[in-house]
Amino acid sequence: MADINSKLEIGVTTGPIRGSAKIHVPSPRLPGVAVAMREIHLEPGSGEPPVRVYDTSGPYSDPQASIDIKAGLPTLRRDWILARGDVEDYDGRAIKPEDNGQLGPDRSGGVPPFPKVVTRPLRAKTGQNVSQMHYARQGIITPEMEYVAIRENLGRAALKEQLIRDGQDWGAEIPDHVTAEFVRDEVARGRAIIPSNINHPESEPMAIGRNFLVKINANIGNSAVASDVASEVDKMVWSIRWGADTVMDLSTGRNIHDTREWILRNSPVPIGTVPIYQALEKVGGIAEDLTWEVFRDTLIEQAEQGVDYFTIHAGVRLPYIPLTAKRVTGIVSRGGSIMAKWCLAHHKESFLYERFDEITEIMKAYDVAYSLGDGLRPGSIADANDEAQFAELYTLGELTKRAWAQDVQVMIEGPGHVPMHKIKENMDKQLAACGEAPFYTLGPLVTDIAPGYDHITSGIGAAMIGWFGTAMLCYVTPKEHLGLPDRDDVKVGVVTYKLAAHAADLAKGHPAAKVRDDALSRARFDFRWRDQFNLSLDPETAEQYHDQTLPAEGAKTAHFCSMCGPKFCSMKITQEVREFAAKQNQAPETFLAAEEAEAGMAEMSRVYNEGGRELYIGAGGREHD
Amino acid sequence: MADINSKLEIGVTTGPIRGSAKIHVPSPRLPGVAVAMREIHLEPGSGEPPVRVYDTSGPYSDPQASIDIKAGLPTLRRDWILARGDVEDYDGRAIKPEDNGQLGPDRSGGVPPFPKVVTRPLRAKTGQNVSQMHYARQGIITPEMEYVAIRENLGRAALKEQLIRDGQDWGAEIPDHVTAEFVRDEVARGRAIIPSNINHPESEPMAIGRNFLVKINANIGNSAVASDVASEVDKMVWSIRWGADTVMDLSTGRNIHDTREWILRNSPVPIGTVPIYQALEKVGGIAEDLTWEVFRDTLIEQAEQGVDYFTIHAGVRLPYIPLTAKRVTGIVSRGGSIMAKWCLAHHKESFLYERFDEITEIMKAYDVAYSLGDGLRPGSIADANDEAQFAELYTLGELTKRAWAQDVQVMIEGPGHVPMHKIKENMDKQLAACGEAPFYTLGPLVTDIAPGYDHITSGIGAAMIGWFGTAMLCYVTPKEHLGLPDRDDVKVGVVTYKLAAHAADLAKGHPAAKVRDDALSRARFDFRWRDQFNLSLDPETAEQYHDQTLPAEGAKTAHFCSMCGPKFCSMKITQEVREFAAKQNQAPETFLAAEEAEAGMAEMSRVYNEGGRELYIGAGGREHD
Repeated sequence: MADINSKLEIGVTTGPIRGSAKIHVPSPRLPGVAVAMREIHLEPGSGEPPVRVYDTSGPYSDPQASIDIKAGLPTLRRDWILARGDVEDYDGRAIKPEDNGQLGPDRSGGVPPFPKVVTRPLRAKTGQNVSQMHYARQGIITPEMEYVAIRENLGRAALKEQLIRDGQDWGAEIPDHVTAEFVRDEVARGRAIIPSNINHPESEPMAIGRNFLVKINANIGNSAVASDVASEVDKMVWSIRWGADTVMDLSTGRNIHDTREWILRNSPVPIGTVPIYQALEKVGGIAEDLTWEVFRDTLIEQAEQGVDYFTIHAGVRLPYIPLTAKRVTGIVSRGGSIMAKWCLAHHKESFLYERFDEITEIMKAYDVAYSLGDGLRPGSIADANDEAQFAELYTLGELTKRAWAQDVQVMIEGPGHVPMHKIKENMDKQLAACGEAPFYTLGPLVTDIAPGYDHITSGIGAAMIGWFGTAMLCYVTPKEHLGLPDRDDVKVGVVTYKLAAHAADLAKGHPAAKVRDDALSRARFDFRWRDQFNLSLDPETAEQYHDQTLPAEGAKTAHFCSMCGPKFCSMKITQEVREFAAKQNQAPETFLAAEEAEAGMAEMSRVYNEGGRELYIGAGGREHD
Repeated sequence: MADINSKLEIGVTTGPIRGSAKIHVPSPRLPGVAVAMREIHLEPGSGEPPVRVYDTSGPYSDPQASIDIKAGLPTLRRDWILARGDVEDYDGRAIKPEDNGQLGPDRSGGVPPFPKVVTRPLRAKTGQNVSQMHYARQGIITPEMEYVAIRENLGRAALKEQLIRDGQDWGAEIPDHVTAEFVRDEVARGRAIIPSNINHPESEPMAIGRNFLVKINANIGNSAVASDVASEVDKMVWSIRWGADTVMDLSTGRNIHDTREWILRNSPVPIGTVPIYQALEKVGGIAEDLTWEVFRDTLIEQAEQGVDYFTIHAGVRLPYIPLTAKRVTGIVSRGGSIMAKWCLAHHKESFLYERFDEITEIMKAYDVAYSLGDGLRPGSIADANDEAQFAELYTLGELTKRAWAQDVQVMIEGPGHVPMHKIKENMDKQLAACGEAPFYTLGPLVTDIAPGYDHITSGIGAAMIGWFGTAMLCYVTPKEHLGLPDRDDVKVGVVTYKLAAHAADLAKGHPAAKVRDDALSRARFDFRWRDQFNLSLDPETAEQYHDQTLPAEGAKTAHFCSMCGPKFCSMKITQEVREFAAKQNQAPETFLAAEEAEAGMAEMSRVYNEGGRELYIGAGGREHD
């Protein structure tokens, strides 16, 4: 396969995504803005228009782009950022040995530093605020907002006649057509965020909000032995190829700083981190030795590199910790447990909570968005929706308003393990407590009894909470609770979450979501097998499964499938029903119109027996009735 | 592995299911009744009681049982059936060439006939009705009902203190403890069925109903070349090993009769079929040549063999067929399209509809249950909940009442492809139209865009509709729409549906469902890895995934996992929080009790610093915050 070959050459997965072509849709308003998406072209004979799909894969899937991970991606947003005139470059924080886990001078076991390291990062000029929320509240439509508007529409306007509003949106306000002004308003109100650190100009702007397409996040982490930096970068490239909208780098141990630099310089999607992980490394892994100074230093380090959002577990307050004592699985969030340890050891309120406004000052100088962590999320069905969880949620609501007071973007992290009947309460409480700030959940898993299948137990909960209003779904792989995911696990996790997010868009009544389902269903009905593969989330797997039963190339165009075989096909029958109905102009509006129906049936019957009887010789087998 | 070895010896998969022991719980009321279930024994040191789980695997997982597929299973129910004194044996219908697809006398390409073929099947004596519904309505509690009661309880009574009613049951009436009288009443009211053909005495009684555990069905079909009968039987054995509660034999082409005989004589679960498939074979695959006589002959043939439920597409009425003309994917049910063809060709009302009461006469003579087929179910998101679908549903409601008038058991088949926001309407309309007869759905799939992952797109819909009240979920494998499932696909499909059904039981508030989740979560929290594997739906896969990252045998007992490594573990921290909280008697009832909490915290802090600090040296990496 093309991408595999090129991977061997340049170290990361490249090549077009099967059956689709990269296009760039220019903004009619802003010259510099051209939005990347993919177009799936269907069989010429079908008379079907191409289907535009949201594309997270960046330049890696663009045959026109030349990829060199040592140079990094083009700095798409740099001119936009500088044009605003509110940033300055300065001598950045010097790299320290502890940034890479005390990696020795010989760098043994280390990754090489990124060749083109930025020595003079950007930050807001004194007294300035460079957050997208700040611009939005000033009434300014940024190029980032314009990009998001075009990106979310997917040419929706051109599809008007196909657009039927059909869904239950639970109070979401999804417009027929997304305008830049709508994006600005959503960001200004805090109902959406555009994670876009000014030091990550390589990123293609995207929005996380309940009134936009539901997004998904994939987590990656460095390997114990990170000898091959390309494979570290490829974890990100592979995730976005299958549809990850953002990627969280949860690396620990050695090489954290350098690995993150390689990922950021090559990432077209926003990158999130959990700064407390690196801070803990800097104090030798002893939680009680953590200090505000070490944590602050880490925030600056990562903000200068360009991390787009930080998970901050500032809601794990000292008085809430005893509430977890009665739990079956206690505290399962790593960040939450680190802070719980610190609070217990010092019997002090969390410094993340007490220094929150100082943290916000840093966030707004780089436009880093908050992802307020749910350190007390339930780790089992038994602990779902308990006091500890909601106590923290209410505190996150209070912190959201404090961040918004400084025009800093916020999203809220959610559970976890929750049985189906308790999922909606999570969404409703979050919307109420956090003023409709975007919700970002891990699953939730709807049962604990299927380790090895937790991408599915969580995909069920993710689809449901996405429908109810969650803006971004953090993926879970089949290895959850058991081990570290490999390349295949990451793909399965991303595709599972992509289908869950799409199911949520459909149920919310997103006006363009159904276009792809309908195009695929028409292809299925017409036996356009290649179109069916190309329109699916994972064309390779779809084709491979088909070929296991019908390997012959002819079967790709044959008007039958392995379920019924060549001699009998239920879909064929429908085609005649349709032809006859058309001929007889017989499609009564309700099933009560039986009489009129029967009238035409006599004629249908006659034509039918004169006509295509030979179509129906023989029989075949289908796996379900 | 033991089961693989034994498979090589005797042709089907046998051996105990990992980590569990087969037990037989005797009825305190009826001497002949001993109910098979499995008990998962946990680490002796854990102080945890064994966990009883519902067991569908039959004698194949019982080391005490001797398996010989040429002899078939013991006839568990035969004495119960004869003891009722309302059946007679008689000279059964003679096997005809067309029963096996005109298999030649040399039987080339055929399977051997089952050695111990029953020549004198049972049927009701003239004027008698042998359906479980008839007995129930007479106030008779049959051994089958007693078996079901004990089976559904899983020793629930012994677990009283663990049982908390926590769920949203949408009007279901699940009792704390299932009694035989409750089973009788549910069957009498038509809210549950016990599929139990008097000619399938090998089956272990089970109930399908909204107030019992949610069940799942797996479909199997014969291979094009069925040279190895053992592999045909093993498809059934493999499905029930992983949790299939019933199995549908959707075989077509040759060997239908003989293959079905092998499956029935070796099946401990109810077997369902779609008789119209075999009837179509008998007329050379030409739908318009189908006649009532050929169909009736097929019903008798299969009833004498012991098929427990028949899918009958009697709701596909002539006037509804034009309603499908406007659809994106028309008629996707094979049975539905066969009948649509027949109706169009003859311009006549369906003979299944017109002869319905005659069919019912046959059903009650053998206690075959109806599975009223949804021949007009939607095959795409676009066609969900349309006129054609609901027109058929209302007719199925009418037919349900006609079947009940003769005390014949009924369940109703449902869709299909339905977006999340339209799922509940399906359940609500079915309950209303069909008088709470059990609903039996295929999925539904909540999006069309993920071929290759349709076990997941449908698992989402299945979990939701199961929660809303569906009694049995028909599985979908990853090969759906693409090809024929292999052994691995069947396992993945069954396990996916098992977890969906369990998630539904949890959300409905089934009083015993949570016991297994809680036991597994405690094992997870205590790092009892083997217990965690054994309590999961697929222990082999769980252990295999764990070992890919931590293969060492020691890691099975180590108090850490690959997510955080040996030096840092969030669960450990919770253990101290708990210990300290216990010591200080500090577990305030609400998070508002912050003051009291802080009071104890000072002491906790002191103990903590004197105490286990050395527990916290170092750090590790976890894949999610």
